[in-house]
Amino acid sequence: MVTTAERVLAGDVRAASRLMRNIDDGDPSATPTLQELFPRTGRAYVVGITGSPGAGKSTLTNRLIAHYRRQGLKVGVLAVDPTSPFSGGAILGDRIRMQEHAVDDGVFIRSLATRGNLGGLSRATGDCIRVMDAMGLDVILVETVGVGQDEIDIAQMAHTTLVVVVPGMGDDIQAIKAGILEIADVFVVNKADRDGADRMVRELRSMLELRHAIKAPPMDHDAHHRMVIAKAHGTHREEEKGAGEWEPPILKVIASGDQGVDALVEQIGAHRGWLEQSGSRQARETARARMQFVAILRERLLASAIARLERERGQLDEVAGRIARGEADPYALADSLASQLTR
Amino acid sequence: MVTTAERVLAGDVRAASRLMRNIDDGDPSATPTLQELFPRTGRAYVVGITGSPGAGKSTLTNRLIAHYRRQGLKVGVLAVDPTSPFSGGAILGDRIRMQEHAVDDGVFIRSLATRGNLGGLSRATGDCIRVMDAMGLDVILVETVGVGQDEIDIAQMAHTTLVVVVPGMGDDIQAIKAGILEIADVFVVNKADRDGADRMVRELRSMLELRHAIKAPPMDHDAHHRMVIAKAHGTHREEEKGAGEWEPPILKVIASGDQGVDALVEQIGAHRGWLEQSGSRQARETARARMQFVAILRERLLASAIARLERERGQLDEVAGRIARGEADPYALADSLASQLTR
Repeated sequence: MVTTAERVLAGDVRAASRLMRNIDDGDPSATPTLQELFPRTGRAYVVGITGSPGAGKSTLTNRLIAHYRRQGLKVGVLAVDPTSPFSGGAILGDRIRMQEHAVDDGVFIRSLATRGNLGGLSRATGDCIRVMDAMGLDVILVETVGVGQDEIDIAQMAHTTLVVVVPGMGDDIQAIKAGILEIADVFVVNKADRDGADRMVRELRSMLELRHAIKAPPMDHDAHHRMVIAKAHGTHREEEKGAGEWEPPILKVIASGDQGVDALVEQIGAHRGWLEQSGSRQARETARARMQFVAILRERLLASAIARLERERGQLDEVAGRIARGEADPYALADSLASQLTR
Repeated sequence: MVTTAERVLAGDVRAASRLMRNIDDGDPSATPTLQELFPRTGRAYVVGITGSPGAGKSTLTNRLIAHYRRQGLKVGVLAVDPTSPFSGGAILGDRIRMQEHAVDDGVFIRSLATRGNLGGLSRATGDCIRVMDAMGLDVILVETVGVGQDEIDIAQMAHTTLVVVVPGMGDDIQAIKAGILEIADVFVVNKADRDGADRMVRELRSMLELRHAIKAPPMDHDAHHRMVIAKAHGTHREEEKGAGEWEPPILKVIASGDQGVDALVEQIGAHRGWLEQSGSRQARETARARMQFVAILRERLLASAIARLERERGQLDEVAGRIARGEADPYALADSLASQLTR
């Protein structure tokens, strides 16, 4: 009998789709297949595309698909939308816009809409990247909506992360906070024919300069604790710093008019080249693996802990009710469950 | 000797600030104080304010502070910014804008910038809300940037959640996805003097109607699993549905010109009244407690699991390196750690 994993490895779109749906649903039956696929992955190049809603990420993704297709590469697109409760992803959205590629069998587009899932979005994204990788896709574009912690986590799963901004979105550059600066390998100022595009470029440049000027905080007694935490979260990229800094380029693009997209593709290639030559590729792969592992671990732990809690103390809702009425101490309960892990 | 908890209960700003800084840092020394404060909380009314960057949330928060102060209420503001890596919160931001209230000792403003913290943002937010509650503040405004899963989690910690949108932010209502619809108790169309404000109101109204039209998906073998997960995450509000629906009002506001803010304060009061009268308040308190407990639990579990992993298998980075090289299986590792909890 042919296993699901074998079908996926052979590029079977229906098998891969079904598997990804199970991953999105948090169905534990996906795990053995993922374990079987795992050693056969690691070939695809993953590009993250993030930025605020309305920044034109889908249009840009569309253009990138077209460019990579012209190079003869097979392209996967994973549209991650944590705010949509409908399976199948965004309501009005990504799929419709990318319909021009729907009949191209060198393009595989899927949406993830995991929610209410105990932080399962990062885990599901990591797993789906693996599936697309196993299918033999050359480039995987991971598009995320929003600028929250989840999006930062997901950006850590990419080799190259594009941060897309548009002129005049906020009142100032409030929209581009420092956490975003840190994850950006390439900045895209989209809709660059709008007023304020040059100002946006200048502001981004000063923020990048500001970043260099900021010194590391002095070490104190909490420093180790914080560093362990930051490392676990994969937000720690200092291992790349020694190997010759990558200066994130800032590119003006008009995705709707296909202007500047060639230059963008070139810069993605340049970043890839830098990762290889500087020896940072390995550090980046480790960071990706760490992020994906932590995402899997976090979800498994919480599911197991809640199962145990419900066995010993009653349904989660009853426990929460007792906490709300001040009859149970949430800190003591959490510590008692977590202590099982340190024994 | 006077404990930190006693100081906080007496409204000591310095003690509360120090405690909140420790909470933000993930310093475990905060826990005993939180446990001591816990039974003394539950009086404050918590209003969440969320929306995309540039929607004018800080200006609106400012106006709300002024309105509540005129009613003689003590106001706390917690500005949550997951994208800022600098302790002290946003670089150019919230604090500066709220400076007009800086010398008013009936107003207590703090930023949270927790990051790289294993999903610690939700936990830190819940804990800081408790501290502000214990200080005797009457209304706590929790302002979040972004529209990711973390922001949805944090919204669950409020009694009333405002979703702030502005006309012309995205190309269409792409910016307001259904997950946001579900958490909104009141919609604020800010900068309502801009073109497209009425269209935005109409579009929001149709999305709300669409929501009513969408039927629940049929139950299948995974339904129970998914429901447990959704319940754990606190995204399950069906307990409120029976008690007479709350229809989220859509308000046009110009925060910068203080227009429409009275009506907004009134609607927040109306929602509060509805929570009480419909009996939904208790369900909402349970949902809040559940979200806060899950946030505490998630962080504790991951910290303990990583400590165990590092004791048994080497530093997380080494383990991640082995995963990246295909020498270790992340699913098996996660399951082996999680299995300690189900024994």
